[in-house]
Parts: sequence; structure tokens; C-alpha cells
Amino acid sequence: MAQQLQAVVWTGTGVRVIDQTRLPGQLVYLDIDTVDELVAAIRRLSVRGAPALGVAGALGVVVAMRQADREGWSAGELARAIDRLRGARPTAVNLAWAVDQVAPLMPDGAAVLAAALRIQEQDAAANRAIGRLGADWLQARLRRPALRVLTHCNAGALATSAWGTALGIVRELHERTVLEVVYVDETRPLLQGARLTAWELAQAGIPHLVQVDAAAAGTVVGGLVDVAIVGADRVAANGDIANKVGTLGIALACQYAQVPFLVAAPESTVDLGTASGASIRIEMRDDEEVLVVAGQRSAPAESRAHNPAFDITPARLVTALVTEQRVLAIAAGQVPAGTNTR
Amino acid sequence: MAQQLQAVVWTGTGVRVIDQTRLPGQLVYLDIDTVDELVAAIRRLSVRGAPALGVAGALGVVVAMRQADREGWSAGELARAIDRLRGARPTAVNLAWAVDQVAPLMPDGAAVLAAALRIQEQDAAANRAIGRLGADWLQARLRRPALRVLTHCNAGALATSAWGTALGIVRELHERTVLEVVYVDETRPLLQGARLTAWELAQAGIPHLVQVDAAAAGTVVGGLVDVAIVGADRVAANGDIANKVGTLGIALACQYAQVPFLVAAPESTVDLGTASGASIRIEMRDDEEVLVVAGQRSAPAESRAHNPAFDITPARLVTALVTEQRVLAIAAGQVPAGTNTR
Repeated sequence: MAQQLQAVVWTGTGVRVIDQTRLPGQLVYLDIDTVDELVAAIRRLSVRGAPALGVAGALGVVVAMRQADREGWSAGELARAIDRLRGARPTAVNLAWAVDQVAPLMPDGAAVLAAALRIQEQDAAANRAIGRLGADWLQARLRRPALRVLTHCNAGALATSAWGTALGIVRELHERTVLEVVYVDETRPLLQGARLTAWELAQAGIPHLVQVDAAAAGTVVGGLVDVAIVGADRVAANGDIANKVGTLGIALACQYAQVPFLVAAPESTVDLGTASGASIRIEMRDDEEVLVVAGQRSAPAESRAHNPAFDITPARLVTALVTEQRVLAIAAGQVPAGTNTR
Repeated sequence: MAQQLQAVVWTGTGVRVIDQTRLPGQLVYLDIDTVDELVAAIRRLSVRGAPALGVAGALGVVVAMRQADREGWSAGELARAIDRLRGARPTAVNLAWAVDQVAPLMPDGAAVLAAALRIQEQDAAANRAIGRLGADWLQARLRRPALRVLTHCNAGALATSAWGTALGIVRELHERTVLEVVYVDETRPLLQGARLTAWELAQAGIPHLVQVDAAAAGTVVGGLVDVAIVGADRVAANGDIANKVGTLGIALACQYAQVPFLVAAPESTVDLGTASGASIRIEMRDDEEVLVVAGQRSAPAESRAHNPAFDITPARLVTALVTEQRVLAIAAGQVPAGTNTR
């Protein structure tokens, strides 16, 4: 069932996304045929995950063109709408990258749509390749018959076009019967780990334990974990990683405990135009995400929040980057160009 | 107002505690005159914090003696009730320590009560001394006119008998007008940071920002913090620290970023009978604390949790331990005996 799951699909007239804010309680789809609806869905994280944002962005260009036709927009109005879409979330590089891949094909609507669907197909194929390469790498290096994995946030089917990136490796290990258990960080404030990753693992029958994010360091240092595997929203040219806030803490614990720390992401996440993590813009989100927990205010009315959505993990803490093409030890230095289309 | 706050008081006939599970929404007191009620209040964290648990435990021996009188208990029944109280939570050493301080004075009820109240007075005095020593140490070492502090969980008035330990230092810095802001980790699963620490700081007019626990590493490594200050539930003879889960991750980030990591705790928290962190029993709590967030289930029904209440921070990650007697650099090795009563 989890393999049929599609976070983003083209219906023929618009984009259909799973409303990830409603999981795991309800599996609700949103049919979207305007740019404003799509931008809002991206901002509130109904659709999320760097590779899925790329697909949504590319298909969103088709949505924009159809809306422009329907509503008689000028070329300037269309360009501004596509810019809004391109910048709906700033940290994941895939969104802007995918828009930039397909937008030059305008005004040929069929070509734009074909290019967007090709991005989706390539991402699905990349997921499976990442799973195989990552599992091969782990099986060659680790000495336990079955591995105990820690992951953070959701880098699964819901974040991509197929099996997921980090969870693609987890699913592959499970298929090879060499997976013991997955420690799932709940991933506050929006609980993508507890709500989405645990849901995907439950659907796939993969044993897992949900923990508060603050438990991750103790789980790693306490010897309960053989490898940590996370996704990435952007990989800089020097190998620094932007990913969901909390990733850095896991990497620090892995370094301390000498546990491998793997980053799984398609080549489209590698941004050779960004020199290092210092130049990655970190999205700051609303106070209420932190201060209102499941509808109830946690802190006093006077309190404000500090709410970065991401953090930067320095390259030297990353044991290896797993893409659809390679398993690259980036702790040492620069990321050489892959064969992606940039 | 915060200075008048008393987490635990003796009413003349029983123990009155603030029900900390109701804060910050409501300030509700519980009047307790049976051992079972007190054990239940301790287990559900209505009363919590290592020093406050010590006071509650010592006064609880008086509660037990009075209940034994009222209900005609045998000596064996009384001893078993005191054992239940002593073991209500296993990780904080202060609870068992305080019970052991006063229980030998039985059956002299007045002597037991006097000894319990003395523990409370000494803890209040210790809070102020910790605040002064910690603030002195920081002012002598740090070069900024006003300090940015990170703290985790609640080591404040609600956890102690007066100003708090970690928050005692924060309050002292604020009184000296050398405090800029406090980053408050919300401290999942029970949100003692967002609910209790933010409330204490708001009451005292101290500027603060609440963040998810997963943000702590990025806040420290990103240069936003001059010092991290936490409390402790137990300090082993080699200087290893047991404290609220998440403490280890902060210590690792501080080590990486070369930011001082201070542990503030009274001498009664130092347990020379525990050789190292490896022999500290970590309390594992119910799955539901993690999986049910503000009354709503976060993860799928099939998911289980891993829910340790504490973690162990190795001594070599601790810049200094601040007690009412000394500021001790313990990263180097053993904790010498203080002048506490053990």
C-alpha cells in the first residue's frame, strides 16, 4: 500500500496532493488548480519534502499557465505568479530548481507538462537507486545481522515521488531482511516524524519506536543505533547540509559516538551554486507553531518563540551523501559535480 | 511574585504542592495528607525537580507517620509506605537522600518535621548561593556586556525551594542587569520548559524565547548563545550528570562550538556512591507521554515509543558544576567530596 502512495499527482486538470497536515488521522486529498492555493498548501506544509516540492513546483508552472489562460493574465502577471511559487519556501533548493527547469519551455504547455512529469519519474527512479546504493554501502560496512536506524523528520514517500530517500534506504534494508528497528524522532514542531514517518513505517509493517527529538543524542550515544539516515533540503558545494531543525544535533551525537551519519538525497538537491551552509537562507516560521501544541497554548501569553525550520550540518560531520549516482564521503571536502542537469 | 512562589510547603497538617501539570494555564494547589496521593503526585510530575522532590520526600515521611497514626498501621506498613515514597522516581538522587536524612529520626515526629524543614531552608539558601557563584564565574569569564543563556527543562523556583538552580543563576544575572535573553527549550514530552520555565521568566519579566528542543544545537552552534545552564538530577562521583532527556545533546553542541556548559545543582545532588553515569538508573516512562500530544494522538495506533526521562552527560562535556559551595571544573576528573552531609 505504501508503494502506491503518491504525495503529488497530475490529474489532467490540476495538481492533487495529500494534505499532510491531516495525517495520520485522515488521508485527505486536495485538488489544486490555482497558484495561490498551491503556494498556501506549500507554506502550511500540506505538501512538503524537498523532492516532492520540486515536483509540485514544476507541475505548478502548468497550473499557472492554465490559470493565466482562464483568467486572461498578462505575461507579467504570469511571471509574478511563477516567482511567488518559486519562492514559496526558501530553503529546499528543489522547488526553485524544478521551476527553473520547466519554465523556459513556456509557452509550450505540453512541453512544460512533459518536463514536469519527467522530473517526477526521475525522482521515483532516484529513490530506488538511493535505496539500493545506501543499503549496499551499509551492508558492506556494518557487522550486525540486522540494523538499528535513527531518522528525523520525513524523508519518505510523502516527501518524494516514490519510496523516499532516507526511508528508501530503510525500506530497502527491510526488504533485504536486515532491518531491526527504526528510531523515529517525532520532529517538533509539526511532528512529521510521529505523524508521517511512523505512518509510512506502520503501513509498510516496519518495526519502529517514536521518540522525542531530545532523546536522539542519548539513543545514539547509548549504543542503541547503528546508523542515522536523514534527507536534505539543500547540499552546498562544500558538503554542508541544510535539513529539518534537529539534524545537526543528531550529527554531533553520531560524531561523538562514532556512528555513521548518512544523508540521502537526489542529485537535484546538490546546489553547486551555494558555496557553503553559511549562504543558505534558513526559513524562520511563525511563533505559533511552537507555542500552540495541538490547539492548546503551551507557554504563557507573554512568551515569544525562536522557530527556525532548518539547521546547517557542517560537511565534516557527514559520513556520506547517498544520491542516485554515488555514495560520496563528503567529510573530506568539496562535492564534485554529478551528472545532474545543472 | 516569582520569589514568593513555593513549589512545596508544609501546612501544619500536610504537604501543599503547586500542581505543575496545570501550569501555565492555572495555578492550582494540591493539599496532600496520604502517602499514596504524594507518590501519585510525584509520578505524574505535579511536583518535580530534584531539590523539590527532596523536600517533598522529607515532608512525606511526616505525612506517612501521621497517616500511620490515623489508620493504625503496623511498623511494617509504615516502613513499606516510606519505601514506596523513597522509590517513587528513581533517577533524582535527592528524593531518596532526603528520605534517608529524616527517617532515622522516627518515631520522633517533631524531629522528623524539623529536619525536613531544615532541608527546605538549606535548599533555599543553596539556591541563592548557586546564583551568586554562577553569576560571578560567568561575569569573570565572558566578554559580552549582556549574556545570552540557553536552558532546558525547569531548574527554577518550581523545581526547588526558592530561586532555582540554573534559573537561580539566570535570575542573579538579570538582577545584575547583565542578562540579554534566555533561549528556553520547550522540553518534550511534558513541556516543562515552555510551561514552567517560560512562566517563571515571564513572571520575573526576564526576556526569553521558547524553542523546540531540536533547535538547541543550531542555536548554540550558530553563535546565538554565550552559555548553557542546566540543573541535574544526579551527579556521579566521576562528574557524569543525569538530567532531563536532551541535556546531552546541548552539551555536545556546546563542546563543538566551544560554549561553556554549566550544571547548577546543590551538593545534595552529588552522589559519591554512584561511580559513574553507567550505574545511574534511567527512568523509562509511558509511551503515551510521547504519542499523545495535548490530548491528541500524534502517531498511528500501531506505533510504540521509546521514552527515557533522562540522559547521561559525560563529565568531560561539563565545563563546570556550580553548587552552593563551589564552582568545580569537573571535565578533568573526579568530584571531590564537598561538605554536604553524606
